[in-house]
Amino acid sequence: MTLNSLVKDQVAAILTGDRRALARAITLVESTRPDHRATAELLLAELLPYSGKSIRIGITGVPGAGKSTFIEAFGLGIINENHKVAVLAVDPSSPKTGGSILGDKTRMEELSRNASAFVRPSPSGGSLGGVARRTRDAMLIAEAAGFDVVIVETVGVGQSEIAVAALVDIFILLIVPGGGDDLQGIKKGIVELADLILVNKADGDLLSAAERAKRDYGAALHLLRAQNEGWKTKIMTCSSILKSGVDDVWKMVQRFKDETETDGNFLQRRKVQAVTWMWDEVNEVIKETLLSNKDISAILPELESQVKNDNLSPTHAAKKILQTIGILKDIET
Amino acid sequence: MTLNSLVKDQVAAILTGDRRALARAITLVESTRPDHRATAELLLAELLPYSGKSIRIGITGVPGAGKSTFIEAFGLGIINENHKVAVLAVDPSSPKTGGSILGDKTRMEELSRNASAFVRPSPSGGSLGGVARRTRDAMLIAEAAGFDVVIVETVGVGQSEIAVAALVDIFILLIVPGGGDDLQGIKKGIVELADLILVNKADGDLLSAAERAKRDYGAALHLLRAQNEGWKTKIMTCSSILKSGVDDVWKMVQRFKDETETDGNFLQRRKVQAVTWMWDEVNEVIKETLLSNKDISAILPELESQVKNDNLSPTHAAKKILQTIGILKDIET
Repeated sequence: MTLNSLVKDQVAAILTGDRRALARAITLVESTRPDHRATAELLLAELLPYSGKSIRIGITGVPGAGKSTFIEAFGLGIINENHKVAVLAVDPSSPKTGGSILGDKTRMEELSRNASAFVRPSPSGGSLGGVARRTRDAMLIAEAAGFDVVIVETVGVGQSEIAVAALVDIFILLIVPGGGDDLQGIKKGIVELADLILVNKADGDLLSAAERAKRDYGAALHLLRAQNEGWKTKIMTCSSILKSGVDDVWKMVQRFKDETETDGNFLQRRKVQAVTWMWDEVNEVIKETLLSNKDISAILPELESQVKNDNLSPTHAAKKILQTIGILKDIET
Repeated sequence: MTLNSLVKDQVAAILTGDRRALARAITLVESTRPDHRATAELLLAELLPYSGKSIRIGITGVPGAGKSTFIEAFGLGIINENHKVAVLAVDPSSPKTGGSILGDKTRMEELSRNASAFVRPSPSGGSLGGVARRTRDAMLIAEAAGFDVVIVETVGVGQSEIAVAALVDIFILLIVPGGGDDLQGIKKGIVELADLILVNKADGDLLSAAERAKRDYGAALHLLRAQNEGWKTKIMTCSSILKSGVDDVWKMVQRFKDETETDGNFLQRRKVQAVTWMWDEVNEVIKETLLSNKDISAILPELESQVKNDNLSPTHAAKKILQTIGILKDIET
């Protein structure tokens, strides 16, 4: 059997929604082995025409915000409306053993077992750029396998939220009511990236705090956000445990899709994202090539130290790196 | 005379604060001619030990926020306290004829004429990365020439604010009171980048609106900003015309410097910036190399179009670009 016909069989299996074929394909795109990468390219090229038909939802929030409980309730609700839901995680800090976000087997237990759901932990190890690329590829494969809702989950404490916001159609920030400390651990700029802020745990003792947080954030966002950008960030409360407000989140996601499809921003955002992915990929591969270059790894620690201590200009240090790989060879040292 | 001795003469002139030598050196680093770049490298390497001793202040705001009037009043006030002030502009949209930000000769008229000030328009043309690099180099040269306050001004309507925030120690957002429309035109994420928000035009009919804006933004920022990040964004009002509150801005800048020097964030931010500049420069040169490559420019429009329309995966398109320049040659097509 040739490589091509193997790939074609795998494509056919994925298109029927075969979950084992889907899982195998994602494992393939996560591999860094050159022969696997080459097969993955063929596979992705075949699947591309069948991808893109989902709504891509990014969800972030600090540990303790209740992301997995929310995603379980949210995902099961969507499945009840006859959708198929894939959940992918982005966590560059995740260890080889399976990912710190979704590694815990008890998380999203009911959703994981559901025939209309597919839950996948973060690709293990690697740079943020690498993890983001593999998640993006996994997203395309899941779409080709018929999942029409893709949720990309990330921990809101690093650079990964920005990478995830660049992968999805709508970006949701999950917070807990906490009287001023609501955003403890959320990095600068993340609030402004959110299309929807969700005050979780609006139940029991926290109910009134959640309602107050919703009002306060509404006023604050109205003030801090320019008014000329189409979709205005919404703020809602929900309780994953009582499952109250969770259906409304899905309604809001659909409203977001309708409105941004009508004003053209939905498609425009995807086009911009696609070109950005292309250049990110170029930069990522070049950076990997640079970092795996023996001559560069030999000089890099010293270069960075000199640059940090103002003994070498960043421009000069960059030139030394570029000369090592043969770019800039026409400029004298 | 050898190149080296020419450079040494120029270095000596800059170190004495010779304004013509300073202006010539900045023109040199703005040049894209390879021989100029090589000389610029030598010059920058010589000047580097004398640079870094200023406070670097970024100022952004939409057209009409009153940036130049503010900078004129602010700069003259600082000069009165025996400082030397350099004003550099970043505006990638600026035309060859001299820059749209500072091209208008009537702007900062008094400051421009002052012997302790140096006002320089945006480098003309080029990519944002290129303009940012040339501004960064100009900043280092101005510091070596004895300017202990460097103000980098940018229009708050594009990506340039983010580039400028990455160049400076303290980032100031200038807004005008306008009842909810205050941020018209300010891009997402800029408010969260600001270390200081300045409500300008707090005079005449706008005085009470300015005071109200200060209170409202104070409450909003308190809510939307995590509390664990050291310096908390401050909000102040000022009137550039009445020169009221302008001195307080300088006091606040000094307080920022004192506090962040004490907690270590000042130096830490500079070290991180320096390493980021190095990688930005690497990426910038590689991107320029790619874009000036004839084989790539021949295929790029078609690649981007296919990627935008989902006919080609971003990963695959990236691979075609990388193969064209000989990276990834070991991976089969």
